[in-house]
Amino acid sequence: MKITSPILVSLAGLTSSHIIPRQGSIDYNVAPPNLSTLANVSLFNTWRPKAHVLPTYGQIGDPCMHYTDPKTGIFHVGYLHNGASGATTSNLVTYTDLNPNSEPFIRAGGLNDPLYVFDGSVIERGINGTPTLLYTSVSYLPIQWTVRYTKGSETQSLAVATDGGRNFTKSNIGPVIPSPPFAVNVTGFRDPYVFQNTQVDSLLGKREGTWYTVISGGVHGKGPSLFLYAQYDDEDADLFQTWEYLGEWWHEQANTTWTEEGWAGRWGFNFEVANYFALDKHGANPKGETFVTVGAEWSYTPIIPQVSDNRDMLWAAGKQTLVDGKLTFEPTMAGRLDSGRSAYAAAGKVLPADSQASWSSGAPDRFITYVWLTGDFYGTAKQFPTAQQNWTGSLLLPRELSVGYLNVVDNELSREKGSWRIDCENSDGTLTLATLHQKIAREPYAAFTKNATGTITQSGGRVSQTTKFKTSPKSKHYMLSASLTFPSRSESLKAGFNILTGARESTPIYYQFSNESFIVDRSNSSAAAATTSGIANDNETGKFRLFDVAGGNGTQVETLDLTIVVDGGVVEVHANNRFALSTWLRSWYADSTGIEFFVEGGEVTFSEVKVWEGLVDAWPQRKSVVQSA
Amino acid sequence: MKITSPILVSLAGLTSSHIIPRQGSIDYNVAPPNLSTLANVSLFNTWRPKAHVLPTYGQIGDPCMHYTDPKTGIFHVGYLHNGASGATTSNLVTYTDLNPNSEPFIRAGGLNDPLYVFDGSVIERGINGTPTLLYTSVSYLPIQWTVRYTKGSETQSLAVATDGGRNFTKSNIGPVIPSPPFAVNVTGFRDPYVFQNTQVDSLLGKREGTWYTVISGGVHGKGPSLFLYAQYDDEDADLFQTWEYLGEWWHEQANTTWTEEGWAGRWGFNFEVANYFALDKHGANPKGETFVTVGAEWSYTPIIPQVSDNRDMLWAAGKQTLVDGKLTFEPTMAGRLDSGRSAYAAAGKVLPADSQASWSSGAPDRFITYVWLTGDFYGTAKQFPTAQQNWTGSLLLPRELSVGYLNVVDNELSREKGSWRIDCENSDGTLTLATLHQKIAREPYAAFTKNATGTITQSGGRVSQTTKFKTSPKSKHYMLSASLTFPSRSESLKAGFNILTGARESTPIYYQFSNESFIVDRSNSSAAAATTSGIANDNETGKFRLFDVAGGNGTQVETLDLTIVVDGGVVEVHANNRFALSTWLRSWYADSTGIEFFVEGGEVTFSEVKVWEGLVDAWPQRKSVVQSA
Repeated sequence: MKITSPILVSLAGLTSSHIIPRQGSIDYNVAPPNLSTLANVSLFNTWRPKAHVLPTYGQIGDPCMHYTDPKTGIFHVGYLHNGASGATTSNLVTYTDLNPNSEPFIRAGGLNDPLYVFDGSVIERGINGTPTLLYTSVSYLPIQWTVRYTKGSETQSLAVATDGGRNFTKSNIGPVIPSPPFAVNVTGFRDPYVFQNTQVDSLLGKREGTWYTVISGGVHGKGPSLFLYAQYDDEDADLFQTWEYLGEWWHEQANTTWTEEGWAGRWGFNFEVANYFALDKHGANPKGETFVTVGAEWSYTPIIPQVSDNRDMLWAAGKQTLVDGKLTFEPTMAGRLDSGRSAYAAAGKVLPADSQASWSSGAPDRFITYVWLTGDFYGTAKQFPTAQQNWTGSLLLPRELSVGYLNVVDNELSREKGSWRIDCENSDGTLTLATLHQKIAREPYAAFTKNATGTITQSGGRVSQTTKFKTSPKSKHYMLSASLTFPSRSESLKAGFNILTGARESTPIYYQFSNESFIVDRSNSSAAAATTSGIANDNETGKFRLFDVAGGNGTQVETLDLTIVVDGGVVEVHANNRFALSTWLRSWYADSTGIEFFVEGGEVTFSEVKVWEGLVDAWPQRKSVVQSA
Repeated sequence: MKITSPILVSLAGLTSSHIIPRQGSIDYNVAPPNLSTLANVSLFNTWRPKAHVLPTYGQIGDPCMHYTDPKTGIFHVGYLHNGASGATTSNLVTYTDLNPNSEPFIRAGGLNDPLYVFDGSVIERGINGTPTLLYTSVSYLPIQWTVRYTKGSETQSLAVATDGGRNFTKSNIGPVIPSPPFAVNVTGFRDPYVFQNTQVDSLLGKREGTWYTVISGGVHGKGPSLFLYAQYDDEDADLFQTWEYLGEWWHEQANTTWTEEGWAGRWGFNFEVANYFALDKHGANPKGETFVTVGAEWSYTPIIPQVSDNRDMLWAAGKQTLVDGKLTFEPTMAGRLDSGRSAYAAAGKVLPADSQASWSSGAPDRFITYVWLTGDFYGTAKQFPTAQQNWTGSLLLPRELSVGYLNVVDNELSREKGSWRIDCENSDGTLTLATLHQKIAREPYAAFTKNATGTITQSGGRVSQTTKFKTSPKSKHYMLSASLTFPSRSESLKAGFNILTGARESTPIYYQFSNESFIVDRSNSSAAAATTSGIANDNETGKFRLFDVAGGNGTQVETLDLTIVVDGGVVEVHANNRFALSTWLRSWYADSTGIEFFVEGGEVTFSEVKVWEGLVDAWPQRKSVVQSA
């Protein structure tokens, strides 16, 4: 999702102050004033995450343009920011800005991109063997799926890494994909995602190692699509100047969904930020199952031009077949990559086993993705005290994706069309389900535990009512983990935790069987919501199913393994390696650090309850920035 | 041909002075100094034509973008000039600048055309029924057929007439033809020429009235081509935003020619400025024979990258057939539109019978073309005293094109493959040949005779040696006409006129049978050539055949009907409505106005010898410009 409104551009200017003063005289022990009356930058540290990727100051947009530099093995994480900026990491834990003050490595304003640089992706060994970016260069507005497409607004152009990626120098040629396919009335045409895949090579009879790109968009009146292109294999193929259109690799009918039960949001009308990759149970494997992550744009009726802008961050796995000679994708399962309404625009990349990070951690080839968490609800939270905070938005923690398998009871719950598929009907009568597994990348997860400034081991056991932890975390930067077992699927049963709890604020995060959903109840999360517009206090929900599994005493409800990362205002809720819901919790009071067991409508057993405090400062080299403790 | 060298751009700046002083103290009765030592603008009037189209000052490039405004019936003549500029005419005789000082109606510097505006053409009833320009928008260099094509350098964009064509406002969208055809390694891709043609409609099964465009260029290693596109006929067809590629309508093998005997120059390696039109014997007729005019770029061997730049201004007529479903053109005859080496880049347009000019003159639908006469040999005459002259180049007089027929003896001369075709083998043993007829448009021709400030009627008769006219023209602005009959095809026979003749200068213009050519012998044309670089004094030649025809006493050589227009430094030689050779004759001396019969190697009969003096001031509204008398 790209922000193109002129109002936001000027705001971006406002918030790009180089001066980041120490946090001053704000008293977090008394009720907040209207925060927009405070001095600029005074809220800089209030909700700033420390273990997450975000620029030094200012706005972060979509993550994109990640790659491992083949010369160094170092992973580059990119994101939109006054163009696109980024950082390097050799461990997925700490990051080094590519340029001082997170200055961009590519900026809009060239011949191909006078208005904007939108998302792109990197061919690691591109032109002259150098990392080469294929990105959306923007020349005209408006761009939105609800209005007539502006011819020439989005084109795809090349830029080549110089100075180890601190700059990407635009090729002195026009766009290499200068328009959508002939006579296709697109709703969007952006975010080229390059990839290599041996299965596609062989299905299409292409040279092994051919580069492909999917471009996200859709067709007016028809629905969302991914358009597939291949590097054209002539004598100049290594210049990447010619891309052959191979058809709509994936198309869904407008305003449809994988299933109306809501396991996978809505396909909507226009796709954005699609990633293509192949996974097996270990991680990335070009011979594995075909996956996409994709942002879907949709609307409630009636569609209001330039206003309707609901978004879902989805994943899908499926089969590719040749239909009339065109490679075509059909999903076999689909789900939400993150259920948070501010979570969107995930961008990932294969991180090879021989990258520095994976070499150190012993990880195999992985597909690592970063989800964006918009800080101002896609530019619509215009009253948010942006100037006071001086930064907007963050990426979420990197996640490792793989195919996950789960042995479950064969019943209606497992047979339903959902965010899983039946991989095997076992001889013992059980089903093996397959789904997308997504875990916080092993390195940051390990770092949060190993480098904890303190740990809280809270005894669990049976809980039937709200129960305070003996010890509160000292700060709002920690990771909480627990396993919950449920005696039944009682419609009234709810269990989880109240976090960021104090005398005047609290946020219940719980699972409820009534609609098989997680709830993040933000109604009492922030005292600032009462004084300041733009501090969201509506609930977040995310559909999640606990299956029936075989237990010692026959069938039982699958255990809920919960991991909650609180990092300033950013909160990530992860469950059973296959669910994530991330959002902003902007607690105000200094005493709002407490944790409570939350149970309603029954008795739930909590075990392995642990809190690792402190997380990790992901930006040790940002000397000038004062992080809250 | 578009000049893109930075040197010339800066020169253009230099020569665009708004101050046009009266011609001062230059004495044309004494030998010239090195002209580049003179004051700027001091040579403004020396060789300036008065009856031709050229801007107030500065450089003129390719003619293009002509159209008849459907609201007014007035014809608009365009040309490249700091973008593109133009003038209107209701009689093809006098012109009114669209803007003061010939300011352009479109300039480079937009999002699609940051570098240059190249040639285009106009859909008279385009977007919202308004004249709509499809033109080449240039973003990158280099552009030349001898070097690798720069991707994105040439795209085709839209602009719409406002203020009656005084401005063309660029559409706020990207290029509508954003790239050459997929994976075609072009040598050039420019100069879209739009047309409608019912024959093409029916051959291709398109809606009657569909707009087409040919785009000129070629394919590296293969040869010159015209690429055909059609207005895509969807619900938005009237926006002209989508153009369907229909294939290479015309392609010739690289470095070939219609005939090695030189009747039609060389096809070369790259086509430019192609026009498509259909003619019958009266003029324009969509159901008539298919014609093109085209600029061909070629080279002697070896080809020197960025240097090789020979050019031929050609025409061809031919047949269109469907080959594998693609409309394909094959010439049946071809020739030079003008044999002068400075004559190039012709651009024409159908001038309808209901235009103001044709309504007044009673002309039918015509195809009117303007040929460019480069003033500095395509930018290579860098030593020419451009700053002193303060203008560079001119268009030639408008010409009416039609299919011409000629009854000739059936012999080797008429059977040769040349710039004609055999239309009919007659029962009396003669052949009817068809060829392209091109005449000075009837209106200026008539105006030159009717409005003459004086006429010289010179008795002719048999002439066998150089013989002075009794009376010399008073100026260097006149039209000379004569008919020459030859007793034989003697190899040694030469006949014509010496013009711009005085005590110290003279230019023989004659026809010789030895190689069936016109010669313009410039060796003694200009005393300035001896003092000043860049004043060309090499000869011009043009291949022309006088056929054998039936006469009173049996077979005789076809009469040569000669018309020579002298307009300052511009000289046009027209013969038998099917030959033209135009060039610069830059005589210096005031007394170089004389005319002589020129005959060598025999006796030739001259008849109908007449000189109309004065021509017409084509620019009566340019008050500030001092024309020489």
